[in-house]
Amino acid sequence: LNLMIDSERGIPKHSLPSDNRQWLLVSRPIGIPQPSDYELVRGPIPALEDGTALIRNLYLSIDPAQRGWAASGTNYSTPVMLGTPMRALAVGVVVESRTPLLPPGSCHYGWFEWQDYCVVAPDRVLSRADPERAPLSAYAGVLGINGWTAYLALLRLGAPKASETVLVSTAAGAVGSLVGQMARNLGARTIGLTSSREKMDLCTGRFGYQFAIDYRSTDFAAKLAQTCFDGVDVYFDNTGGTILDMALRHMRVGGRVVQCGTAAVDRWDPPPTGLRNEREVLTRRLTWRGFVIFDHLSELSEVMTNLQRWLDAGKLVYDEDISAGIEAAPAALTGIYSGVNRGKRLIWIGDGR
Amino acid sequence: LNLMIDSERGIPKHSLPSDNRQWLLVSRPIGIPQPSDYELVRGPIPALEDGTALIRNLYLSIDPAQRGWAASGTNYSTPVMLGTPMRALAVGVVVESRTPLLPPGSCHYGWFEWQDYCVVAPDRVLSRADPERAPLSAYAGVLGINGWTAYLALLRLGAPKASETVLVSTAAGAVGSLVGQMARNLGARTIGLTSSREKMDLCTGRFGYQFAIDYRSTDFAAKLAQTCFDGVDVYFDNTGGTILDMALRHMRVGGRVVQCGTAAVDRWDPPPTGLRNEREVLTRRLTWRGFVIFDHLSELSEVMTNLQRWLDAGKLVYDEDISAGIEAAPAALTGIYSGVNRGKRLIWIGDGR
Repeated sequence: LNLMIDSERGIPKHSLPSDNRQWLLVSRPIGIPQPSDYELVRGPIPALEDGTALIRNLYLSIDPAQRGWAASGTNYSTPVMLGTPMRALAVGVVVESRTPLLPPGSCHYGWFEWQDYCVVAPDRVLSRADPERAPLSAYAGVLGINGWTAYLALLRLGAPKASETVLVSTAAGAVGSLVGQMARNLGARTIGLTSSREKMDLCTGRFGYQFAIDYRSTDFAAKLAQTCFDGVDVYFDNTGGTILDMALRHMRVGGRVVQCGTAAVDRWDPPPTGLRNEREVLTRRLTWRGFVIFDHLSELSEVMTNLQRWLDAGKLVYDEDISAGIEAAPAALTGIYSGVNRGKRLIWIGDGR
Repeated sequence: LNLMIDSERGIPKHSLPSDNRQWLLVSRPIGIPQPSDYELVRGPIPALEDGTALIRNLYLSIDPAQRGWAASGTNYSTPVMLGTPMRALAVGVVVESRTPLLPPGSCHYGWFEWQDYCVVAPDRVLSRADPERAPLSAYAGVLGINGWTAYLALLRLGAPKASETVLVSTAAGAVGSLVGQMARNLGARTIGLTSSREKMDLCTGRFGYQFAIDYRSTDFAAKLAQTCFDGVDVYFDNTGGTILDMALRHMRVGGRVVQCGTAAVDRWDPPPTGLRNEREVLTRRLTWRGFVIFDHLSELSEVMTNLQRWLDAGKLVYDEDISAGIEAAPAALTGIYSGVNRGKRLIWIGDGR
């Protein structure tokens, strides 16, 4: 295999490598996944079968949810088997095909894992990526699970009304930065929780938050109380932990809590403890719901239309933090839990080698 | 004032006492309210004003929620002021009236407090009590906030479908015993959590639960896991605490948790700790909602119709645990938190003295 791929924006024209590099999960992470939990191996490019296509990955996605996929504990999906390629979303291009659903040269976003190549059936594809409409990288972020999650979790579960107050944790992150803008687009008052002065400025300067608070500051509790003096209608939580406990105690009666992630809690085994929250649920008559985007894949057509509309109108901006080279993937995953990334974390692997 | 009241079923014919006894709240309870937090005083019968009626209380209601009303901490209502009559629901009869909305001889259920007499405006009344349709005591229980709560919290928030599994805590209690029967009437599989062998038998023998478990037994965790092996669709929680933590870990994906009470947690100040539950909310995509009946008073007409229909068809049974004499009220409240009552706890004070 040594094809030249027809050129489109973002699709490489050089000849393709003739072997396949893969990041295998070799040990079960305890808490935050570390690079030592993965091993980079080389092997042959897998063979096509009828009904499948060979995908050359271009952008590997780095997502906080990958910790849960790699862990052995309770999760919404079966754990990645040890010794197999790390489960991951990616954007890739079809280089060879035996299915009319995935024609050669077409680009897609799907379950392509942390590797150069994969052979996939069409059911592993989540969406078509059209490089004429948006940069290919966007299909792994604002037009991928980050944008879909922000849109559906906010609009369906949070359902903010104009002039309500929406509080968001990891407000400068790949999901939170979109939630803040969407809530503002819907007329809500927005407060972002983030982890540094620099990210606070991003929140208020770039992502449309009216207020931003550094949850690492020593007077966080006082600042939260001051900013949320009138109560919070929607809390969009990506962190869990003590930030969640504090936020719950500022909810208005009838408030909605969207549990979208738990990035602030390093380990769930053994089960961590914290404040009891059932009395807050009761007395504030909260509706606290969990959101996993993979329950909602049948709703994507509406979502893509509206995301594209906001993007075209300049009402949705996004940042990407892209490294080159497959070697960078595991360390990039470790880094997102400490918040070192600046925008959606991606690994570009479309260069020749 | 020394009226003879026209006789109806349950309404006394003897002459009425000429003074008013009141249980005042004299200290702020720490944890479970104790009799020493209350003081019984005598005073004159209050005077009528235009637009009000004088009510002679017949049944004083003892409700777990009274702990929250007497406490100083976060709750859904303002605390009872020290030195004033204990906030309570009661069933009483109008003995004198200056409002056409509350005619003499009519019976009502409302905010009449722990006392012999009260002067009330019509907005303190929750419902009319018709002794021709049901015993007057029923209007403070199965046809009062217990029945309303069971019905609305189960049907609106829990929304069990036929053949789903509904788990209920304090399953033999004034609310739980009704929830179990209603869930069964709707075709669900029902599991009750209660605190003794005797109450387990009540649950399965009288209240229609398919299974009952004693949460005080040493092998509770194993029995819960065994009985809930296929997962729980609706958890109707009246206890909070470790029972809640354990139940959450048996929820099915998409399960609903109805937070109706927190009777198992003695104190909320200082805030107690327990297992972190946000990961369960997320991975199981739970919907966890708080329910307070007083948000739903506009929906009572539908509720009363359906409760009466079930009662008339013999599809809803209920037990009452009635003591005589106003002196019994505070100790009765203390007792319900340790589960010594057998059915809805009421104090009959309609006798002469």
